[in-house]
Amino acid sequence: MSSIMVDKMKKHNFFAGPAILPAPVLEQAAQAVVDFEGMGLSILEISHRSAQFTAVMEEAMASTKELLNINDDYAVLFLTGGASSQFYMTAMNILNEDETACYVNTGTWSTKAIKEAKFFGNIEEIASSADTNFNYIPKEFAIPENTKYLHITSNNTIFGTQYHQMPTTNVPLVADMSSDIFCRPIDVSRYSVIYAGAQKNLGPAGTTMVIVRKDVLGKVNRAIPTMLDYNTHIKKDSSFNTPPVYPIYVCMLTMRWLKQMGGVAAMEQHNKEKAAILYNEIDSNPLFKGVAAKEDRSLMNATFVLNNDDLNEAFLNACTDAGCMGVKGHRSVGGFRASIYNAMPIESVQTLVDVMKEFGRTHG
Amino acid sequence: MSSIMVDKMKKHNFFAGPAILPAPVLEQAAQAVVDFEGMGLSILEISHRSAQFTAVMEEAMASTKELLNINDDYAVLFLTGGASSQFYMTAMNILNEDETACYVNTGTWSTKAIKEAKFFGNIEEIASSADTNFNYIPKEFAIPENTKYLHITSNNTIFGTQYHQMPTTNVPLVADMSSDIFCRPIDVSRYSVIYAGAQKNLGPAGTTMVIVRKDVLGKVNRAIPTMLDYNTHIKKDSSFNTPPVYPIYVCMLTMRWLKQMGGVAAMEQHNKEKAAILYNEIDSNPLFKGVAAKEDRSLMNATFVLNNDDLNEAFLNACTDAGCMGVKGHRSVGGFRASIYNAMPIESVQTLVDVMKEFGRTHG
Repeated sequence: MSSIMVDKMKKHNFFAGPAILPAPVLEQAAQAVVDFEGMGLSILEISHRSAQFTAVMEEAMASTKELLNINDDYAVLFLTGGASSQFYMTAMNILNEDETACYVNTGTWSTKAIKEAKFFGNIEEIASSADTNFNYIPKEFAIPENTKYLHITSNNTIFGTQYHQMPTTNVPLVADMSSDIFCRPIDVSRYSVIYAGAQKNLGPAGTTMVIVRKDVLGKVNRAIPTMLDYNTHIKKDSSFNTPPVYPIYVCMLTMRWLKQMGGVAAMEQHNKEKAAILYNEIDSNPLFKGVAAKEDRSLMNATFVLNNDDLNEAFLNACTDAGCMGVKGHRSVGGFRASIYNAMPIESVQTLVDVMKEFGRTHG
Repeated sequence: MSSIMVDKMKKHNFFAGPAILPAPVLEQAAQAVVDFEGMGLSILEISHRSAQFTAVMEEAMASTKELLNINDDYAVLFLTGGASSQFYMTAMNILNEDETACYVNTGTWSTKAIKEAKFFGNIEEIASSADTNFNYIPKEFAIPENTKYLHITSNNTIFGTQYHQMPTTNVPLVADMSSDIFCRPIDVSRYSVIYAGAQKNLGPAGTTMVIVRKDVLGKVNRAIPTMLDYNTHIKKDSSFNTPPVYPIYVCMLTMRWLKQMGGVAAMEQHNKEKAAILYNEIDSNPLFKGVAAKEDRSLMNATFVLNNDDLNEAFLNACTDAGCMGVKGHRSVGGFRASIYNAMPIESVQTLVDVMKEFGRTHG
């Protein structure tokens, strides 16, 4: 027996990413570092070809398919390099130099996705909310004929907006779902590619999930280095080379927890409930106002400001005193951001709302 | 207080990679999953922009420079994608289409490095030990004029060979040191790029160290996607996007341990001592014979076979019974492989040698 010290003071983790993970996941994740599956070895020092880790990878792939109701037309991959690598890798794998893809620009990450895709084909930005600092999701746009795919960023972590209805189009979608994968059910059959960096709603930093429709691959003319070809990783179940063992293990544990919680439909209800509590306080407390257009507000990241900027520091101190961490807004927006991912318990949201209420009483 | 169960049965970890990590590193690594630096949060769920993780990244970079005596002409990066990604990324960043780089082929990984570099320039395989299943390091070769760099694989995990003297040439070297980084002092000033997947001698799977001479960059004509450009990561201290937080943390802990152990010179002595014990048994026990040429034997991976293949299973069972794990050889070589990286204690090597001796007595 070895003992691990735990800080007793309760913290409420509102970080935008890497972000909160479920408590039972963290407990098992720590155990595995000491002794994995009774092997007498740490998960950090075992072969990725061992039966024990192969089982982890298989469960991670199967759970993804189960949670999102994904059929065998699709492959599930656990790669590295973050969504930032998928910005170019998606276009590199499915878009020819002379073909066109359309992108909706809803913030910092969409902007980067557009920039990187341009290395590989003709990219049209068909809509953007840049004019109002990305505080809404554009909904009216025409998609040119022969568009290979339409790329969207389903949730915008920095600006606090989220698609609540996916664009209506026959063109296949490609989506960056880094900050809202598994927050609700989705119809995967509408997508050619879905990608998500793990470190927001899925697991720790270090792996990136890619869900790809297999029949869109192998159709580009360019030569692709082996590691950048999705087919390489499909053929080898994400183990062509040594995968990021521990990050994938923690993602698998998170999905196991998600299934125990009732899956993504139950999670959506839970997320709506938490978001309602927080947005209700933002709207009813005269000191605060929300940043994003109401109809596009994110279930994952609530952005808000104080009407009086001079109180910013005092409010952040009040948050810290109550154990609420990571509430400071991104510099692109200012003010505050509370990230309330799947793993965030309702009690933590209530704690933050209590701080806001008390702040209203003392500073109103 | 939460308690973590530890399996009491002592295991000796001879896996080739992911591989053994120092016991005190694993203890701290487990603690950080529960509560990192007294934050009341797990290291898996904190922002990579937090002061606590920024300090980890800074220490990891500084320790690398200290351990290998690296000057400011070089940058140290912690990327993802394994050495397999560096096979193409190195050539992409420093070799123009019409330029030539030379490669020495010493095994599976060199072969792959050659294949991927060919996407980006003229690659000449100037020497190879393929003719004898890579059981030696070629030492005689001519390097053509105007060669941009000479690529070597310093240690060949699968075949059990290692360069004990680097090639004598004025051409800058590029080296894959995935399985022997930090096993001994090296003269970094001879290299344009050194890269190493972490999961052998440096840390867990999930990050790749790259040491790059800054003035060799920015000189190729091709357009490079942002994430594939070394300069992107140099400018942002490996935090252009979310880095693999936990793998980097564990690498930092391993380097802290290395420094406490006396650094790479002390480690080289320790490694030579362990290797001598093992190779001495391989050479003196009539049941066994070594695979690699004696002068090129690896300090990290000892490959050996039984003269009588029929005894293979019985020997592996004897190893398992003694708690020696991962001794089975790679399919490309057969027989056995004992990986005895930095973190391997001398007692574990002695345990394996005792098994070999006892096996000799009972099966000789």
